[in-house]
Amino acid sequence: MRSPFSTLTVAAALLALSASSALRAAQAEVLDAEASDPVRLGWMVGAPPPPERQLRFDDGSYFQFPALRWSVAHFRQLMPTLNISRGLGAPVPLARALRADLDAVQFTPLGGAAPMTWAQSLAANYTDGIVVLHKGRIVYERYFGALDERGQHAAMSVTKSVTGTLGAMLVAEGRLDENRRVSDYVPELASSAFGDATVRQVLDMTTGLQYSEDYADPKAEVWAFSQAGSPLPKPKDYAGPRSYHEYLQTVRPEGEHGAAFAYKTVNSDALGWIIARATGRNVAELLSERIWSRIGAEQDAYITVDSTGTPFAGGGLNTGLRDLARFGELLRNHGRFQGQQIIARAVVDDIRRGGDRAAFARAGYALLPGWSYRNMWWVTHQADGAFMARGVHGQRIYVNPEAAVVIVRYASHPVASNSANDPVTLPAFDAIARHLLTTLR
Amino acid sequence: MRSPFSTLTVAAALLALSASSALRAAQAEVLDAEASDPVRLGWMVGAPPPPERQLRFDDGSYFQFPALRWSVAHFRQLMPTLNISRGLGAPVPLARALRADLDAVQFTPLGGAAPMTWAQSLAANYTDGIVVLHKGRIVYERYFGALDERGQHAAMSVTKSVTGTLGAMLVAEGRLDENRRVSDYVPELASSAFGDATVRQVLDMTTGLQYSEDYADPKAEVWAFSQAGSPLPKPKDYAGPRSYHEYLQTVRPEGEHGAAFAYKTVNSDALGWIIARATGRNVAELLSERIWSRIGAEQDAYITVDSTGTPFAGGGLNTGLRDLARFGELLRNHGRFQGQQIIARAVVDDIRRGGDRAAFARAGYALLPGWSYRNMWWVTHQADGAFMARGVHGQRIYVNPEAAVVIVRYASHPVASNSANDPVTLPAFDAIARHLLTTLR
Repeated sequence: MRSPFSTLTVAAALLALSASSALRAAQAEVLDAEASDPVRLGWMVGAPPPPERQLRFDDGSYFQFPALRWSVAHFRQLMPTLNISRGLGAPVPLARALRADLDAVQFTPLGGAAPMTWAQSLAANYTDGIVVLHKGRIVYERYFGALDERGQHAAMSVTKSVTGTLGAMLVAEGRLDENRRVSDYVPELASSAFGDATVRQVLDMTTGLQYSEDYADPKAEVWAFSQAGSPLPKPKDYAGPRSYHEYLQTVRPEGEHGAAFAYKTVNSDALGWIIARATGRNVAELLSERIWSRIGAEQDAYITVDSTGTPFAGGGLNTGLRDLARFGELLRNHGRFQGQQIIARAVVDDIRRGGDRAAFARAGYALLPGWSYRNMWWVTHQADGAFMARGVHGQRIYVNPEAAVVIVRYASHPVASNSANDPVTLPAFDAIARHLLTTLR
Repeated sequence: MRSPFSTLTVAAALLALSASSALRAAQAEVLDAEASDPVRLGWMVGAPPPPERQLRFDDGSYFQFPALRWSVAHFRQLMPTLNISRGLGAPVPLARALRADLDAVQFTPLGGAAPMTWAQSLAANYTDGIVVLHKGRIVYERYFGALDERGQHAAMSVTKSVTGTLGAMLVAEGRLDENRRVSDYVPELASSAFGDATVRQVLDMTTGLQYSEDYADPKAEVWAFSQAGSPLPKPKDYAGPRSYHEYLQTVRPEGEHGAAFAYKTVNSDALGWIIARATGRNVAELLSERIWSRIGAEQDAYITVDSTGTPFAGGGLNTGLRDLARFGELLRNHGRFQGQQIIARAVVDDIRRGGDRAAFARAGYALLPGWSYRNMWWVTHQADGAFMARGVHGQRIYVNPEAAVVIVRYASHPVASNSANDPVTLPAFDAIARHLLTTLR
């Protein structure tokens, strides 16, 4: 299976190499943000690029650290993608009120490391771009490495929160019944583990599924999922599922639905399928129609697809950073944009209230005590009401209602898991929110 | 070579299947525009689409007529692409002064067919979208099939005229010397047929190259070119060139440079390479920087790439139709847009003067008597000064300076060669120009 024709896919290659990156990061010699800067390293520069600076999709080289620092800003150059139109009108500029005082804001990383400034945190987390909104205005904006304001960057699992939002919108509108079974919407999933789960259990990832995303385990189901979703031709002897839809039908049950939160990407892709059946539109079309064309976006977004044209609802979204900020601000603003209710307020309220904290606790996230997961958003249950979208390698949307702050970050941390950057990210974002809340300007 | 791993590429599959489409079109049963409407046929609709309506890149199914009618509006969903940013500002709307009188304009197709109306010509040519500008205002706009105003469509060889314009701009600026040899800019091409050709000969396609685009000949060089440029993994036993750049180095000479016009796509890709070496930017980056971000475009454009990230300068461009109209209007307006000189007037004048008519005549285009080819534009040498960009399956930019008319058309004619649609297209476009010139409004 590791021939030159290997169909290691986007996700598989990504996950595999993230695992090896994680290993490497654990060692002392991992390159820091400056040394791994993709512009400095010159990936894919030249006509043609020198062989040692060429990155390929089909051999997985594109997603090895530090190369992944270039790739996360160039997914569409590596694989087929579906456009998410912003429409044709004029973008609505985000107001700007830049502040120089944020860089010096101090915080103490979790785990007892020495205090650090906000400015230092950016390199520590291999930030590619970061925007801070306060009361809807950009107070801080920086780009590094391969990303600039005209670029698009992989949102990774932040995609899940977007898909979850669309699903929750359909629930609020009565187009999806959260108490109905998945098989009522997608009969093909009847004999899979999803069949007797409710839409709500899928939305909150409390399904009982035999599905491992342990990248270090070569038998983990994530490998088969990724191979199924690859847009590349399959090996001649390949007998497995050939699309996201085909893979989802093979997922077996494990445990009880509703008992515990278990973060598994396939829930988001099952939701994508449910949405497609309920609306006649895939998540890319629905996202354009319902949100992206209605928030004054500057750029079209895009999403990766499998060989049947099905968007990767669990991780394939790519956007401009400011447009991701617009989406975050829409959530902070109770779903309203320029006097129009784009997302029903009930949906945002439902996310903010959060999910089942006891179910979440059973998943054992040491760094996220007291949190929950609702409509594919991570909810802190802090007094300030902060909630987040989180994607591997440091992608994030942070919404802090009390402080009227939204932070969006695209990054290319060498370690996939957010547990690697949370010790810096979590206190840093909260410190910025507190700073903006308490500093009179 | 025709294993499941076949690296039949974009272009190869495209060309191969166009050839078989041409054959089919010659038969009586070819579907007309209505019967072959891609929306009516439901390609790639459903979650998942039914097997008989799924189109794949890797098996070439996507470019068989009538499926190609869907594919020409969805290239990025099938293959990797490079973005051509319009920038982030507000688009500049094209003024509208719609006219209902164009549909009834009559003309007589070449070759003695019965008179036809403009409205009838649209279906006859399998039009996907058409915009007519008069004095810079949209007087006519229609979409059919898989294209709408928010879509992007393959420009096919209209790409060449865009690449040629960029090349001519660099000549006018002195960044390229049209009298220097190709090998002065791209030493890797020294021992190929391009090595001792001048930049001007490449720009006007008067190079002497052993290169056939005869799709009916399985030994035609176009096959090797297409396989080299495929973004898909190569078969294990593949020993040929692996990129556009590698292929160009293998082109052998045939005849004398400068003796005759010979329409060969590889000239445009050689020019793309020359441009990259002269500017440090590939044609996608340069097109965004120099033109697309400066003409008030509504949408980003995009271009297909090979596995090394090199854009297909000879045929890979995809754009929104109105943006293609903006580009055509820029040419009509002597390179100016909103008081800014985007393209040097000397470049537009040079295109309008045309190329060597005797050299063109040697190529034997029966339907294009007295024409010439300059900077990769087709020049009619009619009294009205009309010149064109032309792409297979009916893509076209028509600029008529005397009538102050620009017509842009995206289409999906079953026959690749423009000789199949020219008998209707040429008199139809001229009739519209004359009508607009002579009708007082």
